[in-house]
Amino acid sequence: MPLLKPITSPTLLANEAICKANIARMAKKAAKHHVALIPHFKTHQSLEVGNWYKEFGINEITVSSIQMAAYFSGQSWKNIHIAFPFNPLEINLLNRLVKDHSISIQLVNAEVAQALADRLTSPVEFFIEIDAGYGRAGVEVSDFGKIEEIMRIANRSDKLDFKGFYIHAGHTYHANKEGIHAIHGQTKAALRMLKDKYCDEFPDLITRSGDTPSCSIEEDFEGIDEIGPGNFAFYDLTQASIGSCDKSDIAVALAAPVVDIRKEKREILIHGGGIHLAKDVLINNDGTNNYGEVVLLTEQGWTIPATTSFLKSISQEHGLIKATDELINNIQIGDILGILPVHSCMTADCMRGYFSLKGEKLDHLKGQKAY
Amino acid sequence: MPLLKPITSPTLLANEAICKANIARMAKKAAKHHVALIPHFKTHQSLEVGNWYKEFGINEITVSSIQMAAYFSGQSWKNIHIAFPFNPLEINLLNRLVKDHSISIQLVNAEVAQALADRLTSPVEFFIEIDAGYGRAGVEVSDFGKIEEIMRIANRSDKLDFKGFYIHAGHTYHANKEGIHAIHGQTKAALRMLKDKYCDEFPDLITRSGDTPSCSIEEDFEGIDEIGPGNFAFYDLTQASIGSCDKSDIAVALAAPVVDIRKEKREILIHGGGIHLAKDVLINNDGTNNYGEVVLLTEQGWTIPATTSFLKSISQEHGLIKATDELINNIQIGDILGILPVHSCMTADCMRGYFSLKGEKLDHLKGQKAY
Repeated sequence: MPLLKPITSPTLLANEAICKANIARMAKKAAKHHVALIPHFKTHQSLEVGNWYKEFGINEITVSSIQMAAYFSGQSWKNIHIAFPFNPLEINLLNRLVKDHSISIQLVNAEVAQALADRLTSPVEFFIEIDAGYGRAGVEVSDFGKIEEIMRIANRSDKLDFKGFYIHAGHTYHANKEGIHAIHGQTKAALRMLKDKYCDEFPDLITRSGDTPSCSIEEDFEGIDEIGPGNFAFYDLTQASIGSCDKSDIAVALAAPVVDIRKEKREILIHGGGIHLAKDVLINNDGTNNYGEVVLLTEQGWTIPATTSFLKSISQEHGLIKATDELINNIQIGDILGILPVHSCMTADCMRGYFSLKGEKLDHLKGQKAY
Repeated sequence: MPLLKPITSPTLLANEAICKANIARMAKKAAKHHVALIPHFKTHQSLEVGNWYKEFGINEITVSSIQMAAYFSGQSWKNIHIAFPFNPLEINLLNRLVKDHSISIQLVNAEVAQALADRLTSPVEFFIEIDAGYGRAGVEVSDFGKIEEIMRIANRSDKLDFKGFYIHAGHTYHANKEGIHAIHGQTKAALRMLKDKYCDEFPDLITRSGDTPSCSIEEDFEGIDEIGPGNFAFYDLTQASIGSCDKSDIAVALAAPVVDIRKEKREILIHGGGIHLAKDVLINNDGTNNYGEVVLLTEQGWTIPATTSFLKSISQEHGLIKATDELINNIQIGDILGILPVHSCMTADCMRGYFSLKGEKLDHLKGQKAY
């Protein structure tokens, strides 16, 4: 089946070979360092892409909402971990889900722990999420009072089983390699300290850390038992810019029709904007905005040109490419260009589904009917 | 039916009364200035919200893609205009759609005009889109060569009917009132000049202009026959910041559950992030980022607090609010806060559906199954 001919409007291409190579590399690294890989599926949110992990021995997964956990349940995963501070309004939903599926959750305060202890109908394992410097979510690493308050509530309950500590050091996404190394050091130190402090009481406690930059770049995971990166399966220009991957490791590209060319300005207008790519942006060395970079589509996938053309601006449906001479001299209205995304998780969420390079449609949680 | 009780996860509330007041105000203004209001539906993308316009005499609409035109077809609209440079890969789709529906399109180059002349099976009306300074799409206003080339192709064809000139001055979104006034002046001057130049040959030619800021703020539409604003139906914080509306005119708010509170840092963590609100951002006076502002939800809708709490950062699912003392002292984990969006079109596209204040679900194009 031809790949490009059926494409007439913005379409997200997923390259299975690149994605599987990314998974294989991370699985090999995890094995080498004796850590379990429990990948985060919030990046692709796809049952079919999820199946690609199975040949690499992955049997537990991570998600970011209870709706996503429900979507992936019934797919023979041994456990699904919801890596988001548990929302107490969803206890009834959780009670329904844990009847038939192994689900673990994440806690950051005593209030929700107590609500769960009071209202859970089946036992649920939980991590305590720790904030070791990111500042987004979690108990501050030195707040032993709060950590132990959650533990006490769990100890008194027959419904809450403490599993360990979880850190997502998301500030690595905004760091360079030295910064990532420093942050990873803090993550390891925090998890080691907590393990040492609580291992007598909880000899089986597990430590887990999540961010793709650290998992991609670092080579020392001492003190960490499990890693839960997500973005690494697809990667994107953000990860390439901080050194987590090469651009050739990026596994998704938006296929976008060319609707106008302004040769004298070296500008190409595509159908492909903020509702397709999302509005994540990188800043080029010269200070200009970069909402995505051009790749050349082929029947086998795409190739990365030697010189970079990039999306200089986007609005709801429009994308405006600043093109190199090479591109502008070889493009026609009606052609389809590929765009490597700045943030693949957000692009996938906007696009709600994929085309494989065989031209097959692949599902996405958001591609289901909303109501 | 209680409004808030059924809400347990991020939900977009649409306030019909505010939205209808916005439509009524714009319809009244259009009537006063003897311009036709052909509203853009890319903001709400909803059949049910679309029906709210009908009581104000609206019978033609604007959309931003052929998929959106197909979605709104069959809803008794007299005409649907696709305000996006026509994508020549979608000529077959257009041929199918125009069999049963009145659709008009937009052209910016001779190549697509010729492709349509060659392949259209039924006549279609078109605007020539003019770029009078925005720099995104359209024929440059002084490029009479290109304008007349498109006209010649249409004249030779029995399938392309020239309707007039269209300008979307989207740079008003980044301007203040003085800037908007200056841009609106350029838009009017450009459309007047083009009308004068071509009215002998095309005595029925129509001029249309689209942006919400100009349509909201300006009081002189000389030279403009039709206006096509979209965002005004919902408005948002961007429009409030540039003076197009008051915050009390914003007709949508994201209902987002509170999952953690860090009282000492005056921070509130909500389930509500980039996949719910999109990542459009305003910059506060002190240089901090603002991804949305807190409103207090009630069974009747929401109220705007006297002091402003705002989303200081968002990631895929998380939103972190910088809260005032008043808010932090009156909030509990498990409460639901409202968030006024920075860019309502993008938020609606992310959320793929609405709850009315009666607790009824309202549709969105993207809430349909993806494939």
